Amino acid sequence: MGAPIVPMQIQRRAVGPHDILIDVLYAGICHSDVHTVRGDWGVPAYPCVPGHEIVGRVVSVGEKVTKFTVGEIAGVGCMVDSCGTCENCLNDREQICLRGTTFTYNSPDKVSGGTTLGGYSEGVVVSERFAIRIPPGMDLASTAPILCAGITTFSPLRHWQVKPGQSIGVVGLGGLGHMAVKLAVAQRAEVTIFTTSPGKVADAKRLGAKRAVLWTDREALKPLANSLDMIISTVPYPFEVQPLLDTLALEGTLVNVGLGEPRGLNTFAMAFGRKRLAGSMIGGIAETQAVIDHCFAHGIAPDVEMITPDQINTAFDRVVDKDVRYRFVIDFASRKHAVASTPDAR
Amino acid sequence: MGAPIVPMQIQRRAVGPHDILIDVLYAGICHSDVHTVRGDWGVPAYPCVPGHEIVGRVVSVGEKVTKFTVGEIAGVGCMVDSCGTCENCLNDREQICLRGTTFTYNSPDKVSGGTTLGGYSEGVVVSERFAIRIPPGMDLASTAPILCAGITTFSPLRHWQVKPGQSIGVVGLGGLGHMAVKLAVAQRAEVTIFTTSPGKVADAKRLGAKRAVLWTDREALKPLANSLDMIISTVPYPFEVQPLLDTLALEGTLVNVGLGEPRGLNTFAMAFGRKRLAGSMIGGIAETQAVIDHCFAHGIAPDVEMITPDQINTAFDRVVDKDVRYRFVIDFASRKHAVASTPDAR
Repeated sequence: MGAPIVPMQIQRRAVGPHDILIDVLYAGICHSDVHTVRGDWGVPAYPCVPGHEIVGRVVSVGEKVTKFTVGEIAGVGCMVDSCGTCENCLNDREQICLRGTTFTYNSPDKVSGGTTLGGYSEGVVVSERFAIRIPPGMDLASTAPILCAGITTFSPLRHWQVKPGQSIGVVGLGGLGHMAVKLAVAQRAEVTIFTTSPGKVADAKRLGAKRAVLWTDREALKPLANSLDMIISTVPYPFEVQPLLDTLALEGTLVNVGLGEPRGLNTFAMAFGRKRLAGSMIGGIAETQAVIDHCFAHGIAPDVEMITPDQINTAFDRVVDKDVRYRFVIDFASRKHAVASTPDAR
Repeated sequence: MGAPIVPMQIQRRAVGPHDILIDVLYAGICHSDVHTVRGDWGVPAYPCVPGHEIVGRVVSVGEKVTKFTVGEIAGVGCMVDSCGTCENCLNDREQICLRGTTFTYNSPDKVSGGTTLGGYSEGVVVSERFAIRIPPGMDLASTAPILCAGITTFSPLRHWQVKPGQSIGVVGLGGLGHMAVKLAVAQRAEVTIFTTSPGKVADAKRLGAKRAVLWTDREALKPLANSLDMIISTVPYPFEVQPLLDTLALEGTLVNVGLGEPRGLNTFAMAFGRKRLAGSMIGGIAETQAVIDHCFAHGIAPDVEMITPDQINTAFDRVVDKDVRYRFVIDFASRKHAVASTPDAR
């Protein structure tokens, strides 16, 4: 079980005029956290504190803050700052700020210097502009993953205007994938799940999908040739993309939100049917607020497994082993309630 | 200069009720012809007769033909048959027939058996459904390349709805590329040419482009970051695509019509700005008629260099050496006029 975990001391900046201090109650574990901490995307800056699915209670507000009052619930997703003036920011796409988005962790911090530190933490200080309002009555533990897994899949479904009756593929049934399925099913799309885990096939129906396909079996893909209007791939590692592109209908798009490298493009096969491969990365702040409100209004919530902070390393291993249904959420709330008897956030 | 060229004898099918026999006057040389003949795309079927940019005079019509009368001018592009009943055919996309398009050469011939034989030939027999009407008064020699190079670039410009004032990139200034430039300039788009040939930079202005960039110099691409609404790549060999994708503006698309394999995708960079990579292949018959009529109406014509049939092998070498501005057209007409004194097609 390894050495006991000793909490690290970090310093948050003072609460500025437009900032809020959030007492963290729940933080989701995203595969990106594992990639970052384990150096899959290069050596991170140290100290490194992951976590970009953060829900907590506002405990302090700067003098110019208008969006929150003390005691309300706020969420923080994948980013905490952007220039606010470039073309992309002005178009509500702060996640792709042309001067460089400041991500929630492991990102150069333009306010305080150094590197941003994420949500596996007692508290965070963030500009109110990058904090999301969580509607009263929303279940907080299962809200956290919407701030990354939810918005990442909601944004392309909205951008590509998925309509009732359309055929949508979802590749990878993990944190992002199961949110994609829930969001697309709520849109009354006909959903096909592509998974590599035989044990997850049975979950397809429960999640509302029409079918699940073990796509390690290329033969199983053939009956789906030229049939899907859109595919969302959540695969976080390099993968052979052409067999999936072949299942797209005329002028269909595969949106790669998992950031796994698509390999083995066949340009003839892509040209056949004018198929597209697109990237998409989370969503802007307005859209993140929209997915929170949408999920609350339609009763859509991720399936979460709660863990305590000392179980994080085990949870990371289980994420890599695809042994999570479907998102780990670190519960800081129970401990804080036990210690401080603060009122329940729910 | 090699051995003298000895014409090969081939047999065309009898003119069926819906067929026309075309006396070939001009045939364009497409890079695909070179790829096919030289085995770049696998060993072709033999005998192999390339040529899918064909213009000629109708000399015989089947009893049920309504679209042509003897003496009129007809064009044949990249395909000569399709099922006519699948979803794609019913949507005027015969080039991606779900039961298999019959291409003009080196394609299984469902009518006669064997393999189709292309336009480097005295005459062709084709169903009127796959023949294009050439308006009286159109220059015939320079019309031939529109049937592949023209439609291949016209179709994505139309599909992605290029508008006046948009910034369009064109990669590769060959047969396809120079048509893409002419068509986009006629649409009042602001065109950037990406070439690897310093000698072609000077041609940019003549063709109406705003600038030409030698994209072997990656530094030269940097000022264009996030600026282009759409890019048409006509590169026919494997190429590094990411530096080009980086020049796309928010939600821009690179359309790969050259069928060169795009390598080195950076999924993070693609996600930044929700950029897309798409395939596109020629166009349907209705759209091919549309590009012919469009070019005639707007005075758009490819730049052609006329050759005689015995210069084909030299022309192939010059295509590979990028030494053509911008399309070779084989002139069968002059010889036929000299021999038979048929009236000039123009």
